[in-house]
Amino acid sequence: MAKTLARSPLAPEGFPALPVIDGVRFATVQAGVRYQGRTDVMLALLDPGSVVAGVFTRSATRAAPVLDCQRKIGGEAPDGAAILVNSGNANAFTGKNGEEAVGHVTAAVAKATGLPDTRVFTSSTGVIGEPLKHERITAKLDELVEGLDPAGIESAAKAIMTTDTFPKGATAEVDLPQGRVKIAGIAKGSGMIAPDMATMLVYIFTDAKMSRTDLQGMISAINERTFNCITVDSDTSTSDTLLMGATGASGVEVGAQDSAFAEALEGVMLDLAHQVVRDGEGATKFVTIAVTGAESDADARTHALSIANSPLVKTAVAGEDPNWGRIVMAIGKSGAAADRDLLTIRFGDVLVAEKGWVSPSYSEEQGAAKMKQPEIEIGVDLGLGSGAATVWTCDLTHGYISINADYRS
Amino acid sequence: MAKTLARSPLAPEGFPALPVIDGVRFATVQAGVRYQGRTDVMLALLDPGSVVAGVFTRSATRAAPVLDCQRKIGGEAPDGAAILVNSGNANAFTGKNGEEAVGHVTAAVAKATGLPDTRVFTSSTGVIGEPLKHERITAKLDELVEGLDPAGIESAAKAIMTTDTFPKGATAEVDLPQGRVKIAGIAKGSGMIAPDMATMLVYIFTDAKMSRTDLQGMISAINERTFNCITVDSDTSTSDTLLMGATGASGVEVGAQDSAFAEALEGVMLDLAHQVVRDGEGATKFVTIAVTGAESDADARTHALSIANSPLVKTAVAGEDPNWGRIVMAIGKSGAAADRDLLTIRFGDVLVAEKGWVSPSYSEEQGAAKMKQPEIEIGVDLGLGSGAATVWTCDLTHGYISINADYRS
Repeated sequence: MAKTLARSPLAPEGFPALPVIDGVRFATVQAGVRYQGRTDVMLALLDPGSVVAGVFTRSATRAAPVLDCQRKIGGEAPDGAAILVNSGNANAFTGKNGEEAVGHVTAAVAKATGLPDTRVFTSSTGVIGEPLKHERITAKLDELVEGLDPAGIESAAKAIMTTDTFPKGATAEVDLPQGRVKIAGIAKGSGMIAPDMATMLVYIFTDAKMSRTDLQGMISAINERTFNCITVDSDTSTSDTLLMGATGASGVEVGAQDSAFAEALEGVMLDLAHQVVRDGEGATKFVTIAVTGAESDADARTHALSIANSPLVKTAVAGEDPNWGRIVMAIGKSGAAADRDLLTIRFGDVLVAEKGWVSPSYSEEQGAAKMKQPEIEIGVDLGLGSGAATVWTCDLTHGYISINADYRS
Repeated sequence: MAKTLARSPLAPEGFPALPVIDGVRFATVQAGVRYQGRTDVMLALLDPGSVVAGVFTRSATRAAPVLDCQRKIGGEAPDGAAILVNSGNANAFTGKNGEEAVGHVTAAVAKATGLPDTRVFTSSTGVIGEPLKHERITAKLDELVEGLDPAGIESAAKAIMTTDTFPKGATAEVDLPQGRVKIAGIAKGSGMIAPDMATMLVYIFTDAKMSRTDLQGMISAINERTFNCITVDSDTSTSDTLLMGATGASGVEVGAQDSAFAEALEGVMLDLAHQVVRDGEGATKFVTIAVTGAESDADARTHALSIANSPLVKTAVAGEDPNWGRIVMAIGKSGAAADRDLLTIRFGDVLVAEKGWVSPSYSEEQGAAKMKQPEIEIGVDLGLGSGAATVWTCDLTHGYISINADYRS
């Protein structure tokens, strides 16, 4: 993206202080893949003994680096692992050339780090359909390896940005009976997510000592309640990737049953997911949609996403219009079970509609006041069962149109 | 809608000359349901012997008039039929009050026309969730009945408009071995348009003599290829209604096997469907998406709608950006079968991508030239089978945001 975007009005005040995670080091470099005058490649190197787990886009047109990661992710990691990410070019829909580019990059990282090629994971984010200038990346590998720094995670968060208006980080420390462990994660993403420049990439690290199976099970389950519950524009990227590495450097063993660790990890993942929504292209409102009383959790999720992805709901939010009729419409079209006359709709704590019609206690002024807030909660109870789901989204504004229609991103 | 919108740049030159359909008369009136200074109620009265068939929204939160129509639509019609439509208020999500309002209106129409209540069909379109001021409509019924005119169909098309920027009509005459019959139809619709019939209202009339079963079968089948293949914003209305009346006044009998009649009717329905897209809120481009080579027709339709509803594709079209990467993304996210390396993408006759990458013959200038046209054809071949589908949509512009976020419609 040539044009510099103003920082999102929903951005957090600053980047959080992320702790050093023993066993992982970071480096960034200006490789000029596409952008000039900024870092665009980051390398994370995990020490021997680390395990790596991942979750990836389900797109049928996945990018070459995603396919390569998926092939490798199940393996053991006695030798450590490397994660190399470039911004500016997604290396997606680049045919055989794309796979060759991944091969060149992973081979070069393997050579520079002494790792086997099977322990090198890459991600690429940026424009689709243009060949990745992999030689610009491989030319910088020695510089990257020399620059590895345990405290380099904030620089890494900046190097992977595309249309993002702020770098995204989150952290947690967990005191377990067996000892203390730390979690630190970074993300990039600004739409759910545009293939040109705004794919979601997430990298999380912990010094906990975990089996790969336990780590994979934990992030897969939590992903369903965090990153898979956000939407900016209903458009799924070809490159979405979440990789998590556990270095074991703390010596503290964590298993699948350690709920305190899982809760802390969910907090980090949810925080990063919310930051992606807060940086949604053109966003001015952060919207929580909580659906209860559905026939099943799946039905609740279908309704919640139907509301979250409705252009008419999203424009009403942008216009600070308490247009609950559009919420009724979105429920009606979702395909999941609903009974018009059992519906209850709330804006925050304001009861808007119940029993198939506007509540006698509701006034337009109450609704309008809620809609003027930067953070809006839409509550829907279907009155049918105990299914529930919560999703997070942002509004649809002139800013989104400008970013995506007025010039090529 | 208070604000007057400029006529769509995609609008046809003028309203077509619709023929008189013997056996049906029209009247309109200014009832002040919500709008001032314009007609907002229309009555169509069909002579005894007419049959009426209908197709309705599948929304789970259907409006009261839709539910009433659905209850009545299967019956016989020895006495003729009446269709009364108001704009300005959708009488949707209005609880028991909504059903009572329909009861008041249909009873008054029955009384004024001498028809049984079961032969009175109503539609309402406009704001959701506000009580319908039915007394404003019933106060005008005598005036409506006095004003009935066989040539009043163009006025009827104007009275049912909401955010529409032009009235919509289409016609056909069919010479069958057994005689000549005429078809004339009108429609309204501009936003909340997605393939479960949008706030789209369509009324079609013919002087053919048909059984209700044959008429219903014909419109249901054709609806799947016409109105259910358009989308403006993926938002399905609570009020979509298509009613078709056959008066039999020509004395020409038409049956289910009369393919010339079915083809002419499909032409009328497709014309009206395209006019709805051409009046899509904020639209500046008319986009045809033709998908071939899918594993099934259903898969082809899933891909085509995924492309048509993608905000990123729609904003790229608005920006005249030949951003075929976004089309790859939309195919990848649709959930239907696709193989990245077998995909072929065309803009009109320009081959853009094939075999998983941009075509060697493609130049950005070629794509950009195609995107500057007001009518754009996106062709996708999946290379998997013989499934095919075509859908029609428009672009997503600042105009859509202005209409839906800047003030309440």
